[in-house]
Amino acid sequence: MAEQAQLLRPTDDEARELARSLIRGARYMSLAVLDPATGFPSVSRALTAIDLDGVPVVLVSALSGHTKGLKDDSRCSLLAGEPGKGDPLAHARITVFCEAELVSRDSAAHQRLRARFLRRHSKAQLYVDFPDFRFYRLAPVQASLNGGFGRAYALGAEDLVFPLAADESAWLKIQNELVEKTSEAARFAQRLGLGDKNWRFGLVDPAGIDLISGDVLVRHEFQHRLDLPEDVIHYICK
Amino acid sequence: MAEQAQLLRPTDDEARELARSLIRGARYMSLAVLDPATGFPSVSRALTAIDLDGVPVVLVSALSGHTKGLKDDSRCSLLAGEPGKGDPLAHARITVFCEAELVSRDSAAHQRLRARFLRRHSKAQLYVDFPDFRFYRLAPVQASLNGGFGRAYALGAEDLVFPLAADESAWLKIQNELVEKTSEAARFAQRLGLGDKNWRFGLVDPAGIDLISGDVLVRHEFQHRLDLPEDVIHYICK
Repeated sequence: MAEQAQLLRPTDDEARELARSLIRGARYMSLAVLDPATGFPSVSRALTAIDLDGVPVVLVSALSGHTKGLKDDSRCSLLAGEPGKGDPLAHARITVFCEAELVSRDSAAHQRLRARFLRRHSKAQLYVDFPDFRFYRLAPVQASLNGGFGRAYALGAEDLVFPLAADESAWLKIQNELVEKTSEAARFAQRLGLGDKNWRFGLVDPAGIDLISGDVLVRHEFQHRLDLPEDVIHYICK
Repeated sequence: MAEQAQLLRPTDDEARELARSLIRGARYMSLAVLDPATGFPSVSRALTAIDLDGVPVVLVSALSGHTKGLKDDSRCSLLAGEPGKGDPLAHARITVFCEAELVSRDSAAHQRLRARFLRRHSKAQLYVDFPDFRFYRLAPVQASLNGGFGRAYALGAEDLVFPLAADESAWLKIQNELVEKTSEAARFAQRLGLGDKNWRFGLVDPAGIDLISGDVLVRHEFQHRLDLPEDVIHYICK
């Protein structure tokens, strides 16, 4: 699964932060599943969000090829990190090997993920409640980070996913409160040097927060983990 | 492998042209292979070029994860078509299921692909001749085109790949001649409404031609197939 050991650099905090930024900051990723009919690996594009613990989430139709794959075999992988200008291989990207977990429609997890997904992808409102659509959590097993030529790292689930300390509802509450805070979003964006762009806050979790402006999503990783939602308000407004 | 039949539109010439443009115009694609150690589908990013017959080509190191996958099991898939502004799922993309064919280092095919690959990716000059690098032709078996919401099509190899009528060396010759023709490239780009951007010609084959300016690659599909290289000159200069 990983590159040859001698090519890998030791995994340090910088690599971990880059890995989390790539995964948590992606609006969409390439999703590879096993095609049940032929055994071929099948790669397609999926919109992504991130659960509170950092697990990537997709919303898929039962009619689509990738859902049939995930239903039949939970093994899958995601590719995050889009190239900008210049050589595409000079840009950081990460392959994350995951086990897919179907989220039952009548579960609390479904409600939580529905709210988080729509925060990022408001147009998904059009189809999120269609009866054939389901969320899958794609739980990372291990990952291969390529930070550009000669910068390869192997990561484990523990580098990417954190169990939640505070209770979920407190995070949902702060998520909702942050919607209104557009002037705080503007100030925070300015602190990050992002310029004046009509920013709003997107998803928030203990590891970081989204700033969103139209199609642009910027993920900011906190300098250290914030276990309590009120710490996020303090961090943003300090 | 395909979407459910009732969701598919009948495959017409417009869909075929869109499919070919996406594949032949991609500077890079997501490549999914089967990981030999774990059986997981593994997706990573690869620079791509196109052989004369339309078969996608990758240049990979024996040390990389995707090469180990391709060596062990030739089944793979490619995702082409990058999202621009707006909803990523509104942008056309195509999943192409392929059988990988290793190109021997001392073959004529290697020389042909080396010349074509470097025409698109000049920085690959730095590593193309390293002993662990090889070309693979990823021969399409079938494909699933998604032209945006509700616009799904199934395609076969015959829609994407054409056997070559004229001889290879004639195509290599015209490829080399076109390098010099920068004023013709500028005029042709203007005809296509592409604006003034220091265009040069990239790859050419019976189905179409690249225009390249820095990082920008625009693939133009000819109105009909041009079986002879001299027809290309006529088409471009008319």
